[in-house]
Amino acid sequence: MKVTATFLDEITWDIPHQNWGPSEWDRDFAAMKKMGIGTVVLIRSGLARWLAYPSRYLHEKCGCAIPELDLIDLFLTLAEKHGMRFFCGTYVSQFYLGKGQPEKELEIDLKSAEEVWRLYGGRKAFRGWYLSHEFSGRNDALAELQAALGRRCKELSGGLPVLMSPFIRGRKEGNAWDPAILNGRESIDPEEHKRTWGGILEQLKGAVDIVAFQDGHTDYFELETYLRINRELCESFGMESWTNCESFDRDMPIKFLPIHWEKMLYKLRAAERAGFTEAITFEFSHFMSPYSIYGGAHGLYDRYMEYLEKQQKA
Amino acid sequence: MKVTATFLDEITWDIPHQNWGPSEWDRDFAAMKKMGIGTVVLIRSGLARWLAYPSRYLHEKCGCAIPELDLIDLFLTLAEKHGMRFFCGTYVSQFYLGKGQPEKELEIDLKSAEEVWRLYGGRKAFRGWYLSHEFSGRNDALAELQAALGRRCKELSGGLPVLMSPFIRGRKEGNAWDPAILNGRESIDPEEHKRTWGGILEQLKGAVDIVAFQDGHTDYFELETYLRINRELCESFGMESWTNCESFDRDMPIKFLPIHWEKMLYKLRAAERAGFTEAITFEFSHFMSPYSIYGGAHGLYDRYMEYLEKQQKA
Amino acid sequence: MKVTATFLDEITWDIPHQNWGPSEWDRDFAAMKKMGIGTVVLIRSGLARWLAYPSRYLHEKCGCAIPELDLIDLFLTLAEKHGMRFFCGTYVSQFYLGKGQPEKELEIDLKSAEEVWRLYGGRKAFRGWYLSHEFSGRNDALAELQAALGRRCKELSGGLPVLMSPFIRGRKEGNAWDPAILNGRESIDPEEHKRTWGGILEQLKGAVDIVAFQDGHTDYFELETYLRINRELCESFGMESWTNCESFDRDMPIKFLPIHWEKMLYKLRAAERAGFTEAITFEFSHFMSPYSIYGGAHGLYDRYMEYLEKQQKA
Repeated sequence: MKVTATFLDEITWDIPHQNWGPSEWDRDFAAMKKMGIGTVVLIRSGLARWLAYPSRYLHEKCGCAIPELDLIDLFLTLAEKHGMRFFCGTYVSQFYLGKGQPEKELEIDLKSAEEVWRLYGGRKAFRGWYLSHEFSGRNDALAELQAALGRRCKELSGGLPVLMSPFIRGRKEGNAWDPAILNGRESIDPEEHKRTWGGILEQLKGAVDIVAFQDGHTDYFELETYLRINRELCESFGMESWTNCESFDRDMPIKFLPIHWEKMLYKLRAAERAGFTEAITFEFSHFMSPYSIYGGAHGLYDRYMEYLEKQQKA
Repeated sequence: MKVTATFLDEITWDIPHQNWGPSEWDRDFAAMKKMGIGTVVLIRSGLARWLAYPSRYLHEKCGCAIPELDLIDLFLTLAEKHGMRFFCGTYVSQFYLGKGQPEKELEIDLKSAEEVWRLYGGRKAFRGWYLSHEFSGRNDALAELQAALGRRCKELSGGLPVLMSPFIRGRKEGNAWDPAILNGRESIDPEEHKRTWGGILEQLKGAVDIVAFQDGHTDYFELETYLRINRELCESFGMESWTNCESFDRDMPIKFLPIHWEKMLYKLRAAERAGFTEAITFEFSHFMSPYSIYGGAHGLYDRYMEYLEKQQKA
Repeated sequence: MKVTATFLDEITWDIPHQNWGPSEWDRDFAAMKKMGIGTVVLIRSGLARWLAYPSRYLHEKCGCAIPELDLIDLFLTLAEKHGMRFFCGTYVSQFYLGKGQPEKELEIDLKSAEEVWRLYGGRKAFRGWYLSHEFSGRNDALAELQAALGRRCKELSGGLPVLMSPFIRGRKEGNAWDPAILNGRESIDPEEHKRTWGGILEQLKGAVDIVAFQDGHTDYFELETYLRINRELCESFGMESWTNCESFDRDMPIKFLPIHWEKMLYKLRAAERAGFTEAITFEFSHFMSPYSIYGGAHGLYDRYMEYLEKQQKA
């Protein structure tokens, strides 16, 4: 069981920025490649007023700031240099959904995706899409939005694969600003998870090709059960199933620093037993990189490389 | 638009200490100087029981610990060495204000300022004062205290300039221990901000020379509006107006790590458009220094230096 | 007053992992030794599902994961290499106590201690035990559990010393996930502390040899009072008394980073005045080590080494 993909968490929602320029990113892509990562997935092309690319459309429509550094261009360039696939995350306005206007969110997300495809669609490394809205099945409007957005992305790009990474409404559900250990106040059990997501994946047929559930919201001992359900659900709808093996630790009061290697190993093995062959991680550059601003990531990289070596010998 | 001043956040309120000795501080002052910083402002000469200088008065009066390292002496020495101005922050007892006894707080703050002037007033780099109480206009007692303290500081020192750095009661008001995104529960709009501060600056005439509002409590899109109000208010009272361009990120669950460079750039440009020419930052050593314990600061320094270079070429 | 012992906080409860392998730990033990540390105390041999040693018993009984790295073996090897004593922490299930079943917790803790002794009791550096449950005197069931567990550890090992490190129900009591400054909602005063602990230590006679109260839950100015009470209590029961001089800062919103050296020095001096001669710290590797993932620890190590040097000259 190997980590073969990572998210790129710029523009971030709850993870502080590393303030890297092109040379730091180049070094980081080289480390990813060495670790066996072949696919990089931009978490989103923009969030609220902050953008990963200089979007005329979003600047005019939503007052977004035009960034100094065009991250989409940079990431494509580095993916090409290092022989990797790039999946582009869509835009998240973080505004209309909260106001109960998903159709406005969808309109903006679609226009931004069209602009992205116009600007970068011809690039060699542009090999897929990522639907940036994270959800857990409680929100019908979001499922519809994802379906429409996914279908449009495929249509634009001649059928490039579309990835999504929802979360499980497990015991550790909650948000990063929550005072207590993540509370899972509205958590559901595996059976309800299965029922709910059966309905949602039905809606998403033809719009989503790969589903990578986040693996951090369940207790460790329940993870394998959820992973099996997820794989079987995806298979039954003809979708690919990856695990999103999170490399940060949800159990600590500092939200978030790199996870303990023993915990990550536990999750990788649970995924292996559940029949998975592909893992993406959220995410390499903060939590697993030898160049991360967080020292715990340096050790996590070393431990993972030792694990890889052992696997290769075996 | 350049950052030409920084706070020195020792003794700190909510930012963990770097535990630097004289040689680490020397290295850091050299990096400040290289970045164009000409003024360093000690955030406070003491807080509760912790002191930046060995104060006999505060030891006896308030039971403060006599520090091993005399930071005021060290900072003056380094300011002299690197050709910078030093502004000295006043003492904050953090005790009497909460008990509704501002006159006791004032008495202690005054006596400490007098002791500071006695001990360090003759030093070449001692070029101004900083009033350490941060407030947002809700507190009449604090405005009075600031006025009395500022007047006394000027009187003591033959008229050296007095700086203050209040905060705006914007949407992100709140405290660092708050569980949720900073809540702005008692936030006010730009018009009320203007009215309130018109009254306060009237009170502070003759006591304060420079006002540097913190720029982190408003939403980004409103910042320019507030900045314009602040500059115009100061001008109308004959005060100098700087922006306090915060280099830490208020939007993240870890309170606090260095800000994203794109956000800082956005704020600097908003200040430029609003007619500002001087920026102080809170603060270089934790959040922008190539030697900071926080890795995100190293990138922020590099990005800022690239920006400076571009400015100089243009 | 010197720090002569440290906890080893693996497996951790609220401190993120550094993800070190054997060579990083070796380097760290060398730095401890250089600083004068002669005793290392494993904080616990396991917590919930995570273990410091490959326990067949706990794997089968509680579904614990068998770790890749046997930390108890590694720490014993390094203690032997660097000429240090190793005290082994007991297991904490974190499950039965919350359900009001202390007798089940005790049964598991005992069986794990027996297994630990079977596996590692013959090792040269195995020189004592640590009772891993931290409590503050409110919980009679825990005192009984500690007594039974301590007695059994001594019995197993031919009387090796047993250490415990309770906390004081002071003003800063609270938990690391608490939103506000630690609240001390249920704090007690020094007199009640003395009464309560008089009763508890009576219960623990013959089961505990060394008591090292944590020094971080009181306000600084009260610390000496508590320290005197603690030393006198221990003396009256024939127990050894150390101070647990915490090297992390409880006063900051990031829970937790290294403490300011001036605060640590203040606490060491208070312990010295109160008649202590031994200090353990929680803990070296994250908060005082020159190799810590937290930069503030590097400075703390340097400042402490300067302090040691001054002491030796004096």
